[in-house]
Amino acid sequence: MISNVLNTLDTTRPQAIENLKSFLRIPSISTDPDRAGDVQHCADWLAQQLVESGLSAQVLPTGGHPVVLARNAHVPGRPTVLLYGHYDVQPAEPLEQWLSPAFEPTIRSGAIYARGAVDDKGQVWAHVEALRAWQRHGGIPINITMLVEGEEEIGSAHLADFMRDHRGALAADIALISDTDQFARGVPAIVYGLRGLAYMEVTITAADHDLHSGLYGGAVPNPANILCEVLATLHDENGRVNIPGFYEDVAPLTDAERAMWASLPFDEPAFKQELALETLCGEEGFSTVERRWARPTCDINGLTSGYQGPGAKTVIASKASAKVSMRLVPNQDPAKIEAAFTRAIRERCPANVTVEVVSHHGAEPVLIPLDSPAVKLAAEALQVGFGHPAVFIREGGSIPVVSLIRRILGIDSLLVGFGLTDDRVHAPNEKFDLNCFYNGARTAATLYAKLAGLK
Amino acid sequence: MISNVLNTLDTTRPQAIENLKSFLRIPSISTDPDRAGDVQHCADWLAQQLVESGLSAQVLPTGGHPVVLARNAHVPGRPTVLLYGHYDVQPAEPLEQWLSPAFEPTIRSGAIYARGAVDDKGQVWAHVEALRAWQRHGGIPINITMLVEGEEEIGSAHLADFMRDHRGALAADIALISDTDQFARGVPAIVYGLRGLAYMEVTITAADHDLHSGLYGGAVPNPANILCEVLATLHDENGRVNIPGFYEDVAPLTDAERAMWASLPFDEPAFKQELALETLCGEEGFSTVERRWARPTCDINGLTSGYQGPGAKTVIASKASAKVSMRLVPNQDPAKIEAAFTRAIRERCPANVTVEVVSHHGAEPVLIPLDSPAVKLAAEALQVGFGHPAVFIREGGSIPVVSLIRRILGIDSLLVGFGLTDDRVHAPNEKFDLNCFYNGARTAATLYAKLAGLK
Repeated sequence: MISNVLNTLDTTRPQAIENLKSFLRIPSISTDPDRAGDVQHCADWLAQQLVESGLSAQVLPTGGHPVVLARNAHVPGRPTVLLYGHYDVQPAEPLEQWLSPAFEPTIRSGAIYARGAVDDKGQVWAHVEALRAWQRHGGIPINITMLVEGEEEIGSAHLADFMRDHRGALAADIALISDTDQFARGVPAIVYGLRGLAYMEVTITAADHDLHSGLYGGAVPNPANILCEVLATLHDENGRVNIPGFYEDVAPLTDAERAMWASLPFDEPAFKQELALETLCGEEGFSTVERRWARPTCDINGLTSGYQGPGAKTVIASKASAKVSMRLVPNQDPAKIEAAFTRAIRERCPANVTVEVVSHHGAEPVLIPLDSPAVKLAAEALQVGFGHPAVFIREGGSIPVVSLIRRILGIDSLLVGFGLTDDRVHAPNEKFDLNCFYNGARTAATLYAKLAGLK
Repeated sequence: MISNVLNTLDTTRPQAIENLKSFLRIPSISTDPDRAGDVQHCADWLAQQLVESGLSAQVLPTGGHPVVLARNAHVPGRPTVLLYGHYDVQPAEPLEQWLSPAFEPTIRSGAIYARGAVDDKGQVWAHVEALRAWQRHGGIPINITMLVEGEEEIGSAHLADFMRDHRGALAADIALISDTDQFARGVPAIVYGLRGLAYMEVTITAADHDLHSGLYGGAVPNPANILCEVLATLHDENGRVNIPGFYEDVAPLTDAERAMWASLPFDEPAFKQELALETLCGEEGFSTVERRWARPTCDINGLTSGYQGPGAKTVIASKASAKVSMRLVPNQDPAKIEAAFTRAIRERCPANVTVEVVSHHGAEPVLIPLDSPAVKLAAEALQVGFGHPAVFIREGGSIPVVSLIRRILGIDSLLVGFGLTDDRVHAPNEKFDLNCFYNGARTAATLYAKLAGLK
């Protein structure tokens, strides 16, 4: 059965590429108010395609851009998979750097170039082709609910409300997301862990107006001096974060996990060269991969105080502020870390200034057990799709929708992506290698069959 | 003789005010290109007034706005005094906050309100009235060279060249400047010391582009973290500047000077209230006045890195930079301090980032010996003019022209100003109390007579 499906995918490639091109031609730039009509058109077009594939599909309104919600006829007793993707894209600017226009999909050297090629239209379309192939061979073997949103690139502001309002329709055993990369070309990956986030802003205020540094300097508190002194306390000399209780809940890496990551084909010299850095740094006792995937951090993301123009201005600013974010790992709790950070900053500020600490947003760290059945099935599907064993990795960033799905729908997400790290996501000349697209569709089709055995 | 002069000043007050109003009506805003004609007109008008006072006067071009240069007939053997002032003014914005229009001088509650009322047209005009009164009573008893520039409010960019080109014409025994304040209402002051300046900019660069804090955080150097850590080392726990050699050349305060300042009517509660600060701070072992006037500092004047807009952006910036200025006191050398600062910053930065340290500008600290004859004579003149003994103070800022005069013409400056600290210099509703103006003119007239005995 699956072999027929895979055979269909192989023989319908030219039509699949034409379909994907149609999808990519629609400039569904969610951040641009002038493109709201294109975003709506893209949702309508996608829903129509899914209907033509034999699914029921609706374009549902949100407080912002609409959601496409589709499903096959669910059969009681079968596992239900929530397939998440997004049909909106980033702006294409700077336009002059594109070798072919961003919304005229063009094939060069075995890849398709367009805005959204891999993020995320191309990966969504790999699934659509897999679903269509199954429909031609007796139907999709699992219950599929497909949620394709139009606001991922602008922070998914209305997705939480949408999920709450459609909790019943979205009920599933597991979510499946293809919006990540392979580990390296030809080495498919399952992302089983994500870091969380606590993003804070610290503002220190002294006098109620800016002061002349000649007339007042030396006799008044300088918020910029104090901000630097306080922020400098946030790390110790071994690169560890110096906030009481910060590491209390950190799940240690197992020896097996460390050994598995040590065997990955991670090219540290190339990594350094890409950043123009001669040496890396970080917490003592951990490798670069471990520092990025499994250790918590504290990084200043912005500093603002006083005069920032060219030349000199002799001012003692009234205020100094910093954006500081902490990447969190299992089992750190964003709320607990925010409180510990706030307490530490307040305690370390002198009494003669006022300090304000605000939390911008948080995200829970994510970890899916490596020995869970779904992870094993996804690995088997990737082996079929890409002809190479999958590796098990984490990512250092957060994927907010994974936290949302966990929090609102109560299920884990399988992160099985088909992209490459050089696909220039969000940049000019975004691409998706055709082989990645084909192998992605094969993986998706295989995975549906494997997940049929989930319960 | 002097009594006749003072009598004339007293009886010609109404005409003096009319003259000052004419001066103040000219909107000689040096920073505004649209006002260049008014600036030129102001110089021409002032030169004409000086000619009518019996001086020879010229309007001389510079690379920017012109200088008014005037003199009486110099008599060999008499001391020569270089009288410095400026006829340009700050912009008047925000216009809507003026109770009467900025360039329609208006008298209310015993003060004249206009842009430039005290800074510096009113103080220049007090001297012009004193010179005129002497001309009616046998002539000015000293050799006067008057230099009134039109670019003080925009940094006196062409003054150094002008002084070099006219070194001969500007030769004098001492300079006299009225562009400062009394210590308090009715308590006239001689400013005998100024702090110098070394203004630096530090830029730290790590990777050659901004990085996502999730994907890279924890494994790469963060320039903003490092900048804060390095800047935090610039003070020790006693508020002293922690740069090797920084205090090496600092002239200690004498007991006599400390006792003199301790007896000044400095209102520390009012000072704190003005700044909305509950407590002050600074170097251990020194009073607020001492910290502001006679101790060197190191203050961050600007911080810039990464994301500065509202909300959150998870970025590790490629660069972080700070403007840092040090106020210097006698006998610190700006060049030596700049070098020590640069060395300290470089040594304290880790090897995995690049650091750039740039010097923006420096100014020498100034100290006129309290026991110098000119200072004593100025004190006597202020006692006559204001009916109250003068106090001897320093200022925490730099007055660049004082350094220029010292460096190019080789002479000290007497800083004898008539303003009040609440005159709202550079702000809406700038004013000059009429009594300050009258007493200033009396002081000037008296001082000319006293300086006649200088050698």
